Formats: sequence, C-alpha cells, structure tokens
Amino acid sequence: MDNRPIGIFDSGVGGLTVMREVMEQLPYENIIYLGDTARIPYGSKSDQTIKKYANQCSSFLMSKDVKTIVIACNTASSIALENVQNNFDLPVLGVIDPGARSAAQVTENKKIGVIGTIATINSNAYQQKIMEYLYDAEVIGIPCPLFVPIVEEGWEYSNIAELTAEKYLDELIEHEVDTLVLGCTHYPILRYTIRKVVGQNVKLVNPAFETARDLKRLLEENNMLNEHFDKARYEYYASDAPERLRRIGGNFLKKEIDNLYEIAIDKL
Amino acid sequence: MDNRPIGIFDSGVGGLTVMREVMEQLPYENIIYLGDTARIPYGSKSDQTIKKYANQCSSFLMSKDVKTIVIACNTASSIALENVQNNFDLPVLGVIDPGARSAAQVTENKKIGVIGTIATINSNAYQQKIMEYLYDAEVIGIPCPLFVPIVEEGWEYSNIAELTAEKYLDELIEHEVDTLVLGCTHYPILRYTIRKVVGQNVKLVNPAFETARDLKRLLEENNMLNEHFDKARYEYYASDAPERLRRIGGNFLKKEIDNLYEIAIDKL
Repeated sequence: MDNRPIGIFDSGVGGLTVMREVMEQLPYENIIYLGDTARIPYGSKSDQTIKKYANQCSSFLMSKDVKTIVIACNTASSIALENVQNNFDLPVLGVIDPGARSAAQVTENKKIGVIGTIATINSNAYQQKIMEYLYDAEVIGIPCPLFVPIVEEGWEYSNIAELTAEKYLDELIEHEVDTLVLGCTHYPILRYTIRKVVGQNVKLVNPAFETARDLKRLLEENNMLNEHFDKARYEYYASDAPERLRRIGGNFLKKEIDNLYEIAIDKL
Repeated sequence: MDNRPIGIFDSGVGGLTVMREVMEQLPYENIIYLGDTARIPYGSKSDQTIKKYANQCSSFLMSKDVKTIVIACNTASSIALENVQNNFDLPVLGVIDPGARSAAQVTENKKIGVIGTIATINSNAYQQKIMEYLYDAEVIGIPCPLFVPIVEEGWEYSNIAELTAEKYLDELIEHEVDTLVLGCTHYPILRYTIRKVVGQNVKLVNPAFETARDLKRLLEENNMLNEHFDKARYEYYASDAPERLRRIGGNFLKKEIDNLYEIAIDKL
C-alpha cells in the first residue's frame, strides 16, 4: 500500500478533466495538480523546451512526494513522456497511449476521427499511435481551434458551440468514422454537444477516462493504492493567474477548487 | 527623403492589418514585416520577457536598415514601447496611443467600449490611455477570446461570428457606448460583422488605421518619405511556420504574401 498522493500536471486548466476522472475512479486517492499556466500553450514550443518544462513540472510534483505522475497534457505526453520516464524513478503515464489504444479497440469499420488543437493534430501523435495498435486504420485528424475558447467561456451548451461543432465535424461524418477521439483535455466538457452533432452511432473516446482507468490498474497491480479510506485531499498549484484556474477550472472539475497555491515554476 | 523601408513587427499575423493600412496610406513605401510566430502569444508572458522579445524583433528590423519601427502588437506596444524607443535611435510607434487618442476625440457621450484579447483588456492599457486624453470618459473593456480563432479560421462572415459578436457586445450596447475601439489587430477583419451587431450609430475606431495615419504624418513632417514612386517592395519574415503566415495572412492583407522567409529569432 502507498499513501502518497498522485501527481498530475498540464500546461493549464485542461488537465482537470483528467483529474476529474481520476477522482471518480479512485475516490480515496490524494491528488496534487499542477497547471503550468505561466507557460501555456506548450503546443507552439520546441521539443527541447517542452521536455524542459515537463521535467520541471515533474520535479515540482516529486518535491510533493507523489507516487506516480500523470502527464495530462497532449503535447507534453507526445513529446516528453519517455524523457520524464527515464529521468524519474516512478511510474509516469501520458494521455495519448490510453486514448489511442481504446480507439483502436472499439472501432469496427476502422475509420477513426481525432479532434484536437492545431498543435496536437499537426503532431500526428494520436494518428501514429492508433496505427501502431491497428495498422490498417484510416485516421482523420481535424483541428478545432474554437473549442478551447468556447469551453473556457463556459459556452459549451450554446448554439455557438453546436454550430461550431457542426462545421468542424461535418467532414468526419461524411467519412463515416465510427469512433471519435476527444484529443484535447478541454473537449470532454463539450461531449454532449459533440454527441448531438455526430449522433448515437459514433463512439466517443475520452482519453481522460482511459488514462484514469490505466492508472487504477497500475496502482492495483503494483499494490500502490491508498489504504486509508478517508476523504481524499486535493491540492492545486498554478504557475500564473491562480484565480483564473479557480474560476474556469471549477467547470472542468464540477467541484470547488480549494487549497490553491501559486508557484514560480522557473525558479525551481 | 529617405528610401529605406519601414519595419513592422507583431507576435504573429495580426499586425498585417496594420501593414495593410500602411500600404494603403503610404503606397510608395517599402515595408519589412516580422511576425514572431515562434513565441506567440506575447500576452501571457512577463513584462521582462516581452521587453526582451520586442528588442530582439527591433534588432532584427534594424539589421534590415529600416527608417522607422511600428510595433503592431497591442501587448508589446503597451509594455515595451518606451523601452524600444530608448534603445534604438529611430522613431518607434505603437498602436495603443493612436487608437486611444482617436477614441477620445470622436466620442460624444464619453462612453467608450474597448474590445481585445484577455491579456490586452486585463492590462488596462487602452482604458488608461483613453483617460489620459479624456479624464472623465467611461471606458468599458470586454475581452473577446473567440474572435481571434474565428478570424484565423476565415469565418468572419459566418453566423458563428455574428452570434459570438452579439454575445460579447450586448453589454456595450446596453451601456450605450457611442465609440468602440477594435483593440486587437485581428478585429478589423470582423468589422462588418461587428458593425451589423452594434448598428450605425457606434463609431468604430481601428487603431491600425490611426497608427498608419500617425506614421504618414511623422514621415511627412520629418521629410522621410520615399522619393521613388516605384512599385513598393514588401518582405515578410516569420520566426516559425511561415506557411501558416502565408495562408492566414493573405486574408489580413487582401494580397498574396511573397518574399516570405523563416528566421531563428532567438539566435540573433
């Protein structure tokens, strides 16, 4: 048994959808969340810089004595996962592999759509990983740059959200994909709107859910679950603008954000 | 007379709306444009970092032997203008002051709206500058984070753009502002949609237009106009993803972008 907290980091608030899934599937686990809001977005940075940032975030979480690290950021997961795994002596999970594996498992017609930020779609990270699991999959990536600001405005149920989803997802519907990967941590907030647009026959894959499931299995198999069935403790750290994380993040977490602290990430 | 080019820089493609106005008002002037696309957005960076970036961009333009520099970026104009003016021995203009001055001049009821990115509105740069010109103005700032991705998608005439503009501008209409400052370089692209929403009685102030007018006056008064009435030469530099600047920027400039080069801005 291992009573230390789980560490989760992202470049901003998006990773709170991953934290939300971890809270649901592992309700007795303490969690430390770090949003590197000072340096968001990672997507436009060089590989070298992203690796440096991911290692700094991991070092910070290590200083809080975490037992595992979840990289809840698509960009950092695709660029820096292996590097962080090599540099730190604890299990480290990313969000790309669980999402890609699930998509490859659930598709029937092997036509899979992936939606994400411009950076994530251009990186081809999901597309490549899916084809590692299912070599003859046809994977179509569509960048949806309006989705993040729509979610951050809290407009996920608006007619603007629905019209935007129709515009972005039309091509995927025409290609008859039967599976759609929500390849950005913000997008699960939009899943009801996306569901409305793509219809009931398309399977939505939420990498946040799949990552939490992998994490649960990892902790169980390695006998690392928290043995105390008390109320779990959650702590939040932001490298800039903590109040924005509190305000926007509450909608991601469906829960008040207390125990929130600002840190100087580049001073670590 | 001075035949050297004018230098313009921005953190991305947005400054091309400023270049567009300069091209219209000063059709015989050669222009060098730099989009620091590798480090966009400036709005989330520290003051110190923004000053460093603005000075690096200015140094690059100086290496191209420009006669003036226009900081066509709201963030850099508000944070770094004075610093760049002190460090370089040539006239340097920003976009905040011309926009704020014009708003203070044209308002009749002294109720002025300013729209911009979250960073620009939170910085209060336009609000403060307007009140320097008109101390008893009532200035209301509204951040419009969806406008930039709407413009970058080329959706400026869509129903999504119109619904979004209604949502953002409703409060300004209720407050009966008679003047609206388009405080983000992307927003002039949306001016027809914004006009439709706010009606004919609200004066739209485009800082890009006002800045070009100030620049023209400066060159005339200092006898710095180009004496060759040939076809002007335009050169474009991007610190990352030049093809994206070419693709999106064409819509800003209403003109093909040739003579486009990629540079390593942090190696300068």
